[in-house]
Amino acid sequence: MTQILHLTASARHGRSLSRMLGARFIDGWRRLRPDDVIVPRDVGAVPPPAISENWIAGAFTPEVERTPEQQDALAISDELIGEVVDCDLIVLATPMYNYGMPAALKAWVDQVVRVNKTFTFDLTRGDDPLAPTLAGKTMVLLTSSGEFGFAPGELRSHMNHLIPHLETVSKYLGVTEIHTASIEYQEFGDARHESSVALAQDRVDGLVGELTKSLPSVAA
Amino acid sequence: MTQILHLTASARHGRSLSRMLGARFIDGWRRLRPDDVIVPRDVGAVPPPAISENWIAGAFTPEVERTPEQQDALAISDELIGEVVDCDLIVLATPMYNYGMPAALKAWVDQVVRVNKTFTFDLTRGDDPLAPTLAGKTMVLLTSSGEFGFAPGELRSHMNHLIPHLETVSKYLGVTEIHTASIEYQEFGDARHESSVALAQDRVDGLVGELTKSLPSVAA
Repeated sequence: MTQILHLTASARHGRSLSRMLGARFIDGWRRLRPDDVIVPRDVGAVPPPAISENWIAGAFTPEVERTPEQQDALAISDELIGEVVDCDLIVLATPMYNYGMPAALKAWVDQVVRVNKTFTFDLTRGDDPLAPTLAGKTMVLLTSSGEFGFAPGELRSHMNHLIPHLETVSKYLGVTEIHTASIEYQEFGDARHESSVALAQDRVDGLVGELTKSLPSVAA
Repeated sequence: MTQILHLTASARHGRSLSRMLGARFIDGWRRLRPDDVIVPRDVGAVPPPAISENWIAGAFTPEVERTPEQQDALAISDELIGEVVDCDLIVLATPMYNYGMPAALKAWVDQVVRVNKTFTFDLTRGDDPLAPTLAGKTMVLLTSSGEFGFAPGELRSHMNHLIPHLETVSKYLGVTEIHTASIEYQEFGDARHESSVALAQDRVDGLVGELTKSLPSVAA
């Protein structure tokens, strides 16, 4: 059995293209693998709080010594980390806002990347003291942007602070394999946009076919 | 006269190094130019909300046609944009969290970069339809990170999703000149860290000297 964390970051509901891609992936998956567990987490609709001074102090304090305020600050982090730990596949559907993650998605990242939970810190490792504690997870990253040319080698690749950033931090979620599908040209609303939507939808359908074959379907 | 927006993004108070650099810049400035106006905005202490569906719909709706919910959603955006419009210099002090902006700072960015306020969108401009409405502002970007090697050409430069991202979006705040000072090695707490702090402090002092000379001191 595969457990999927279906993470959605768009602030929009009906007209979100990233949301559409995420729903398409999940619907396709359910048709082929109806017994898999899907855990939805809609940070676009309910953004996690930004981390606070109590959060940081609590994360660096042994669990039994935490103040009630520190425990409160970490409660949502514990819940969100639990969802990451339990899943095999993260389907992350997000728009590009101002060339990067929506603040709501960055709030989720800041809640789940946590010392002694998703990574350890050890200076005996030398100049590379961080190491993830999780491994073997797959991420399907579904994005939508108003402009275009954000792929490597294209004209706005140096302005893409969304996908490269998620590639960097996903290491600390135990992600060792990433697949992407991206819609571009949303603000132009022209034939290039229509073509980009169609290509991304085909890519999503292809990823469903591919990953339902490669990810475990037998009960653990 | 120069008006300074003093923006602070760290969730920590007493022990924040980025906060220390920001305070050092402002203290130095006040000594040399006591009559300038300093507007503090501490998004680390009070994070702005993530933008919502009402925010997006409202931003694309003419002001007189907005619903009360859309007006409410845009109120904090109006206030934060007003602070950007009114300033000549943005002193932005921020830690690197998970290789990028703290969520609270990204929330601020998503609130202030707004169609028909800080940029216009016009398809007659072709494939580059966005243009900022503001210009001529200077940014002093003061950062702190736990690891090191994030400068261009160094070993973690490809993992720096903080400074390059802020360079990209600051265009839409009317920023045409950026100066940076960065503390690294915070997690190591070794001599390299002490040296990095001392160098960043010297750099801040130098920037105060330089910019108090170049920015207008005569009443407008």
